[in-house]
Amino acid sequence: MKAIVLERIGDAGGLRLADIPDPVAGPGEVVVRLQAAALNHRDVFIRKGLYPGIRFPVILGSDGAGDVIATGDGVAPSLGGRSVVIDPSFDWGDDPRAQGDGFQILGLQHPGTYAEEIAVPADHVHPKPAHLTYEEAAALPLAFVTAYRALVVRAQLQKGETVLITGIGGGVAASALVLAMGIGADVFVTSGSADKIERARSLGALGGVKHTDPAWPNVFLSTFGRRPDVVIDGAGGDTFDRALDVLRSGGRLVSYGATLGRAPNVEVRRIFWKQLNVLGSTMGTRDDFSAMLDLCARLRLRPIVDTVLPLRNAAEAHARMESGSQFGKIVLKI
Amino acid sequence: MKAIVLERIGDAGGLRLADIPDPVAGPGEVVVRLQAAALNHRDVFIRKGLYPGIRFPVILGSDGAGDVIATGDGVAPSLGGRSVVIDPSFDWGDDPRAQGDGFQILGLQHPGTYAEEIAVPADHVHPKPAHLTYEEAAALPLAFVTAYRALVVRAQLQKGETVLITGIGGGVAASALVLAMGIGADVFVTSGSADKIERARSLGALGGVKHTDPAWPNVFLSTFGRRPDVVIDGAGGDTFDRALDVLRSGGRLVSYGATLGRAPNVEVRRIFWKQLNVLGSTMGTRDDFSAMLDLCARLRLRPIVDTVLPLRNAAEAHARMESGSQFGKIVLKI
Repeated sequence: MKAIVLERIGDAGGLRLADIPDPVAGPGEVVVRLQAAALNHRDVFIRKGLYPGIRFPVILGSDGAGDVIATGDGVAPSLGGRSVVIDPSFDWGDDPRAQGDGFQILGLQHPGTYAEEIAVPADHVHPKPAHLTYEEAAALPLAFVTAYRALVVRAQLQKGETVLITGIGGGVAASALVLAMGIGADVFVTSGSADKIERARSLGALGGVKHTDPAWPNVFLSTFGRRPDVVIDGAGGDTFDRALDVLRSGGRLVSYGATLGRAPNVEVRRIFWKQLNVLGSTMGTRDDFSAMLDLCARLRLRPIVDTVLPLRNAAEAHARMESGSQFGKIVLKI
Repeated sequence: MKAIVLERIGDAGGLRLADIPDPVAGPGEVVVRLQAAALNHRDVFIRKGLYPGIRFPVILGSDGAGDVIATGDGVAPSLGGRSVVIDPSFDWGDDPRAQGDGFQILGLQHPGTYAEEIAVPADHVHPKPAHLTYEEAAALPLAFVTAYRALVVRAQLQKGETVLITGIGGGVAASALVLAMGIGADVFVTSGSADKIERARSLGALGGVKHTDPAWPNVFLSTFGRRPDVVIDGAGGDTFDRALDVLRSGGRLVSYGATLGRAPNVEVRRIFWKQLNVLGSTMGTRDDFSAMLDLCARLRLRPIVDTVLPLRNAAEAHARMESGSQFGKIVLKI
């Protein structure tokens, strides 16, 4: 089969289309013929050498959708032919509150989805929501399960509440926008880009503020006349304290990332006096993944797809992700 | 009646025993003849002018216990003669998640408990737990309701869990020690003082570490071979990030204060990767107060009383609180 293999740390030139042996369904496994994969920032970070223990060649990719073409020993043969989407969380462990030390994400130790075929444990394939194309289904796994756990499991977002999503445009943020609208919340966003705020409005957000202004919490309050019940943030850094500032008393900040690094100056008094909940969240359990798919099917949610490129153009797809200009998921058609 | 009145901002010399008119039970109020009051750091902060809008003279004191000696219109006369403890949270508001803008604590706008008598709304008096002396009952209100909300309502501490209480010796921390032991948790502490750690051990804590060593989270882990499920912190500052460090994955940090001020450098990655819950908490609702008293009665919990001094020695009591050498509550016998 053909796959995009990463042969070295460095620029996107290290991603090469190669012929490699077809995967085989071991005991308890299925082979999926992938129709589409999708990118995550994680893929870029791995390519740049930010993850330890990498052994080349690596097949990147955590997100994939396709059809089961082989079943191993101990797997119900009726799975054959099913259209599926793959749960990328491996070995979460026993505690639903947090992943254990053995936790892995598909596409590093375990060969990923930038490939025509993949072998995965049978309990990692879930029926593809019928209303979605393969490209859309491949845009779900990592970003949507992360957004689902953040919004539904952790924040317990309710219909009618106000949610603010920082840094709109990234995969998780765009997924959170779709999910929060599906739940019936009033959605606001921040971005460094006026275009992305406008795009979010066209998708149903009620408004946004540019987070390049350090006083954006005040701008938010004066512009919209309310404070969010929930903030969903993947930036960290200075944004962390500003999120605590903008929240209403009793509100929830879900932190799912820290692209800006450490928070340099946190007003702890805000946390206790406003009785805030700051809730860390990453990825999701198998139950979260399954519930996320059910919710997508029930509400007929569609992920936001920025671009679809052929698999062989993986390097171009990486370059687009690094440019930061995308809004939603970058998908590889296989 | 006699009361300690604060006549000016400044040192403890501004606290003077004075004769003032007896309070009268207005409609919906009762008058309590106080048998004991207790100090909180808040009293010292008010005396030093750290609270806005102060109008002299002020009667300080949020904590008090005594007997109902008069009932106003609309109050059941059967309340007369009852031994009671006073709920110091006024006008919390409608939202159990957080106090509203009108929230006040007894002993600033509303004359406090450093007095022979006090008039309060009848729904602020609760039956004194029968197993407690007046001095013990007066040691409960502010510190115990704060500790109760932090441990029970917010952290939902369970029997068998491990809890770490930072800065043991202060009123809330000492109350949290008693409550957590009552719940059946394994309790550990931090302090700057080896004597206070030893005192906590004599009261049932399993051990402690000196927080003067910036590497105390590592010391905790290597000494006790485990990580806390819950940390209860009133310090903030550098302690905030260290509390996130020491916690187990999926653990809870309850922040109820920030005596060290802002947290200068917070590793946000710890919050999301360990899927922590950082839960702000302050004071408690009427329901919290009532549930706290019920739990104290059921488990026969006794607050830790550091010192009992006569009311006229309020200045001496303030000096002891400012020395930081106390362990538990400083009580005024009236």
